[in-house]
Amino acid sequence: MTTAPKPKYKVIGTRPIRHDGADKVTGRAKYGADIKLSGMLYAAMLRSPHAHANIKKIDTSKAEKLPGVRAVVTSKDIPEQGDRIVELGEGAVNMRHLASNVLAREKVNYRGHAVAAVAADNIHIAEEACKLIEVEYEVLAPVMDVIEAMKPGALVINPDVKDENGKPTNVAKTFCFEKGDVAKGFAAADVVIEKEFRTATVHQGYIEPHNATVHWNNDGKVTVWMSTQGTFSARQQTAELHRIPISDVKVIPMEIGGGFGGKISVYLPPVAAALSKKTGKPVKLVMDRAAVFEATGPTPGSVMKVKIGAKKDGSLVAGEAWVAFEAGGYPGSPIGMGCMCVFACYDIPNAKVDGFDVCVNRPRTNAYRAPGSTQVAFAVESIIDEICEKLKLDPIEFRLKNGSQEGTRRVDGPVFPRIGMKETVQAIKDSDHWRQPLNGKNRGRGVATGFWFNCGLKSAASATVNPDGTVSLLEGSTDIGGSRTAIAMQLAETLGIKAEEVKPSVVDTDSVGYTDVTGGSRVTFATGIAAIEAGKDIINQLKERAAIIWECDAGQVRYEDGSVHGPKGVSLTFKQLADKLHHTGGAVIGRGTSSEATQGGAFGTHAVDVEVDPETGKVTILRYTVAQDAGTAIHPSYVEGQFTGGAVQGIGWALNEEYWYDTNGTMRNSTYLDYRIPTCYDLPKIETIIVEVPDPQHPFGVRGVGEVPIVPPPAAIANAIHQAIGVRMTELPMSPPRVMKAILSK
Amino acid sequence: MTTAPKPKYKVIGTRPIRHDGADKVTGRAKYGADIKLSGMLYAAMLRSPHAHANIKKIDTSKAEKLPGVRAVVTSKDIPEQGDRIVELGEGAVNMRHLASNVLAREKVNYRGHAVAAVAADNIHIAEEACKLIEVEYEVLAPVMDVIEAMKPGALVINPDVKDENGKPTNVAKTFCFEKGDVAKGFAAADVVIEKEFRTATVHQGYIEPHNATVHWNNDGKVTVWMSTQGTFSARQQTAELHRIPISDVKVIPMEIGGGFGGKISVYLPPVAAALSKKTGKPVKLVMDRAAVFEATGPTPGSVMKVKIGAKKDGSLVAGEAWVAFEAGGYPGSPIGMGCMCVFACYDIPNAKVDGFDVCVNRPRTNAYRAPGSTQVAFAVESIIDEICEKLKLDPIEFRLKNGSQEGTRRVDGPVFPRIGMKETVQAIKDSDHWRQPLNGKNRGRGVATGFWFNCGLKSAASATVNPDGTVSLLEGSTDIGGSRTAIAMQLAETLGIKAEEVKPSVVDTDSVGYTDVTGGSRVTFATGIAAIEAGKDIINQLKERAAIIWECDAGQVRYEDGSVHGPKGVSLTFKQLADKLHHTGGAVIGRGTSSEATQGGAFGTHAVDVEVDPETGKVTILRYTVAQDAGTAIHPSYVEGQFTGGAVQGIGWALNEEYWYDTNGTMRNSTYLDYRIPTCYDLPKIETIIVEVPDPQHPFGVRGVGEVPIVPPPAAIANAIHQAIGVRMTELPMSPPRVMKAILSK
Repeated sequence: MTTAPKPKYKVIGTRPIRHDGADKVTGRAKYGADIKLSGMLYAAMLRSPHAHANIKKIDTSKAEKLPGVRAVVTSKDIPEQGDRIVELGEGAVNMRHLASNVLAREKVNYRGHAVAAVAADNIHIAEEACKLIEVEYEVLAPVMDVIEAMKPGALVINPDVKDENGKPTNVAKTFCFEKGDVAKGFAAADVVIEKEFRTATVHQGYIEPHNATVHWNNDGKVTVWMSTQGTFSARQQTAELHRIPISDVKVIPMEIGGGFGGKISVYLPPVAAALSKKTGKPVKLVMDRAAVFEATGPTPGSVMKVKIGAKKDGSLVAGEAWVAFEAGGYPGSPIGMGCMCVFACYDIPNAKVDGFDVCVNRPRTNAYRAPGSTQVAFAVESIIDEICEKLKLDPIEFRLKNGSQEGTRRVDGPVFPRIGMKETVQAIKDSDHWRQPLNGKNRGRGVATGFWFNCGLKSAASATVNPDGTVSLLEGSTDIGGSRTAIAMQLAETLGIKAEEVKPSVVDTDSVGYTDVTGGSRVTFATGIAAIEAGKDIINQLKERAAIIWECDAGQVRYEDGSVHGPKGVSLTFKQLADKLHHTGGAVIGRGTSSEATQGGAFGTHAVDVEVDPETGKVTILRYTVAQDAGTAIHPSYVEGQFTGGAVQGIGWALNEEYWYDTNGTMRNSTYLDYRIPTCYDLPKIETIIVEVPDPQHPFGVRGVGEVPIVPPPAAIANAIHQAIGVRMTELPMSPPRVMKAILSK
Repeated sequence: MTTAPKPKYKVIGTRPIRHDGADKVTGRAKYGADIKLSGMLYAAMLRSPHAHANIKKIDTSKAEKLPGVRAVVTSKDIPEQGDRIVELGEGAVNMRHLASNVLAREKVNYRGHAVAAVAADNIHIAEEACKLIEVEYEVLAPVMDVIEAMKPGALVINPDVKDENGKPTNVAKTFCFEKGDVAKGFAAADVVIEKEFRTATVHQGYIEPHNATVHWNNDGKVTVWMSTQGTFSARQQTAELHRIPISDVKVIPMEIGGGFGGKISVYLPPVAAALSKKTGKPVKLVMDRAAVFEATGPTPGSVMKVKIGAKKDGSLVAGEAWVAFEAGGYPGSPIGMGCMCVFACYDIPNAKVDGFDVCVNRPRTNAYRAPGSTQVAFAVESIIDEICEKLKLDPIEFRLKNGSQEGTRRVDGPVFPRIGMKETVQAIKDSDHWRQPLNGKNRGRGVATGFWFNCGLKSAASATVNPDGTVSLLEGSTDIGGSRTAIAMQLAETLGIKAEEVKPSVVDTDSVGYTDVTGGSRVTFATGIAAIEAGKDIINQLKERAAIIWECDAGQVRYEDGSVHGPKGVSLTFKQLADKLHHTGGAVIGRGTSSEATQGGAFGTHAVDVEVDPETGKVTILRYTVAQDAGTAIHPSYVEGQFTGGAVQGIGWALNEEYWYDTNGTMRNSTYLDYRIPTCYDLPKIETIIVEVPDPQHPFGVRGVGEVPIVPPPAAIANAIHQAIGVRMTELPMSPPRVMKAILSK
């Protein structure tokens, strides 16, 4: 369902079969674990059994003597990094922390922290050898909770992390954004709601574990095969960690079985590289599920205190948020982004946000779909719902009244360009779902809105015209959600040919211009622009070729509707001209980049009907509708897929998912049997409404769609639960025990 | 040794380590036979035991029933081609003949001709199944000799090949070139020598057999892994034979273990494709050595009648040549090129050439290093030597007097631009070799000159700048002789960076613009131009980026010596600027093509000292020197490598190599034990002199060097043998039995 009229596109908005479809459905697509190279060694890692400990000594001698073991590496095999901060496309990284996270140096900061790795003739020997490595630990008390970690006198996890007075601290970073006069704002409010919220540590839950196969060649050139969200980022992190030139590393992207933000940081390639350097052979390293849970970056658990004030007429006057995110074992949670998102859905004249990035003895957190936004939306959208309740206002009308729009200034400064926040609310209001009454006992309906910036960053593409009138497209964005086709469609639209006539390839770091990570909902937007630019470059050259054929000036040739048109009515279709390139100068290669464009941000509003079992506290989702602004939906099926997938992940986060730690800081549910992600048995079909308010920053109006749909679910479900049984849930997940507890305390 | 002064280059003329060196010397480089894919099937071929037969019936039913057999294909599985002629970059091809050569249709035209193929779970089952295929042949008399084949009434091999009267014939093509008045020329001659020469069928002798692994995917997309001299040509031939769009085929080039012209035609990919289409699995097909000899294209054996006249003063006045080449089982010998080369070394005012492409029951011939030129040089250079003998002229002085030079018109029309024929003669004259007297019994010294056009054709390249100041280069020319480095050096020279700072990759047909075959000594020339153009494209963009940084106009920026220079003395090195690209517009991608440039042609003059054993007829090479015009030697080691390798192949052709057929048309020496290519035991170190007369058609003056060095050896050795023992050899190879026979007949 599309809500806005749009320009007449021929390819955009259609639903061609994805170019990689046959490979994906037949199982022929190659993922990282499918790699097998001649002479390849298999590696295993020794991981810390303690959540917090000093490493006194590592003795690898017994492991090295085990027959079949080819090399053992520890942190000594990764060069010292000092205090270097390296700029990656997706942000700066502290190399000391990155190196220590990859292989622990003086300390282990979380259970599962990598301590050593072994390469051997087979995986069994490698695993056996890991058991022979003797590590002398001085076990420390684990610091698991954000509030505890922030207390003065708390055991400090990273001694090099210091406060403004130079005193070691667990609070790695503090943010403060403010606009207007918050005190004055609250003074003018008729109703003020203030609450504390907590969300659990939650994993992205991708199916494919992290993997890397690395060959450090005799000439110093390093090849990495891996599934990653960013080949160029992985290249840079691997090269910087080993202190070798970037261009000595080539990253070959394998297909990726899910990432959601979790496959941006590198864990394995630098370790496999160290093993390969020592052995001269390719080394393959694949995580098991427990390692994925325990040692890769989940999204931070959080503690949030949020206070919002409104007038009786329903106008928001002030907001205040105190937000502390788990950083994990090293600094770097998406707290800054959380702070920027917290009030972004509303035009609040007076607002203040304080944010804290807090080290705890959990895995170093990482991006997960709209990083930081889901947490803060849970708090803010719950309070908004309560304000509506108090003021007896319709939550839809409230949002239509107070929602952000073009010209609204965010608490962190920027002013929104054209956005579609209210249009998504209106779409829910107009939806069949919203119009149908919800009957039945213990049932409730909730609504919530979510925001994500959407990144621009840098992309490149190049494309060559084939003599049969097709175009081969090279791109550097690894394809997680169908972006091969979404990018190809934009090139096809530009050239006036069919989507099927563009043949896209995701290629290695030597074969395409620098391209930032697949993340931040940026690929269809920015790599799309690069492909459009490559298309324009092709068109310019085609005009010149036609001018040669027609013996006229290139200025006399125009390109329209997939054909060149010359003087006196002569014309050639793209296909006809493609066939003549051999004799007019050879190959036509188009190139394009995107680097300056930024996105206007995207919004989604979700409606959910739930039924709560008062006997068990189990929440059943009865109906779920996502309305989100896609700007322009390039391939509506993929847009719907993102809406659906994001909503489902948000539902899992809302109802079931959490890291269960025991008192020693050991995760007790690090398998998919115990860590409950939703399955099709838990869910109705997610209904989707594609709202299209074109982003003026993109030639076709694209807005990234991947992040936003995970943001509203926890809040929407919490609001629905309240309507169903009259309790306000303030802690995620809203699992049966927690809901039962809330029912009982009521 | 370099004879001419040259411009001051920084990279060109140096000898950096080849970029693929480590992979090659450690055995890590992947050749076609190294491919192993999951679910891959292994294929074997049934080949004809007869040199000439009609196929009455093929029964594959027993083979199909053998457990483990997955598919059997015959010519029925390759679509009918009709009378289509398809233009490949390297020339036109008759699709009916190509298809029939790939899998015999109504007839087998040579022993070893492919008849059927089997794909099975392993190669043993596939080979076993081939034996179960029942073919009913009507055996015909083999037509093995060119002269016999040309006779009226000879059994016609290809009924569709007809003469001008529409009568079936074995003479597939006739050429006639003429300039001046030949009769008048001969009338003015004081000495006329006329002789008949024969050369044997000779194989290129590459080490790596042909191979192809093909996967015909469920979506109709076909991927081919193979070692080939031309990925785009292989793509086109495979696609055209299967009547599918070119862009549905992707050819991934594996490393190539020698080609020399023999790995341009396709043999296996269309067959493996048919098997993969039937089975849905990747299918691997690798030839054994016997198949390589019996069923891939050797260079044609020839019969030549050549007559040359000169005046007493040593000036050439007339030449006449009648040249018949074996085409093999289907038309298409390089007879045209032979006719163009025959008199190309000399400025002969009156000349005429008749050429004939003659079908015989031998494998369809193919290109082999300077196709056609070695044969005719053997004839012409032998006669020139005899003229010098008769006129008591020094053969060096004779060549300096009569040699072609700028302005000389070839018998086939074109007028030479600047060339270095006489410079190579002078280089031999000035060489230590020529100046040292040759003493000893049965010893002789010979000299001969050779020519090859050198092709231009089409190439493309693209290149991206890395943030660390290196450049990744993509090219489509498969690398047989070090061209990765030779092309990278030209890009490096253009950009003013080091050869090691360019990282070249030979990529698949989807990843680079259309590029013609690696052959005709064109790669360093034409792909070099494409890389230079890509470099210029990069420079233009770098100027724009510097202008952004310096806030000036791009026109105010100049690029010099690896740096951008702006107003008021500001400058940035390539490396410094590369580091700033992220913030000035993202990736810089350069693209370049070459399509119009043609080469001026290249010449080489060889001197050889031999000793003939009068008891056995064995000829021992005592000393051998190659002087050849390389235009500008990009990487002198590779130039010397081509000189040496070509000379060695020419020596093998001269002394030992030949296809030995029995009366049934069966080759009796189809192994490297019996087909004698020279080894290091047979040869002295080949001395090389790089002459540099820059080709004005190339920015750096490059002339291709791969072909010419094979041309002079047979003639030079024949001339040396004559000086040693006084006999004129007129048949190749000049093997001990033939030399003994000549000695005895004297």
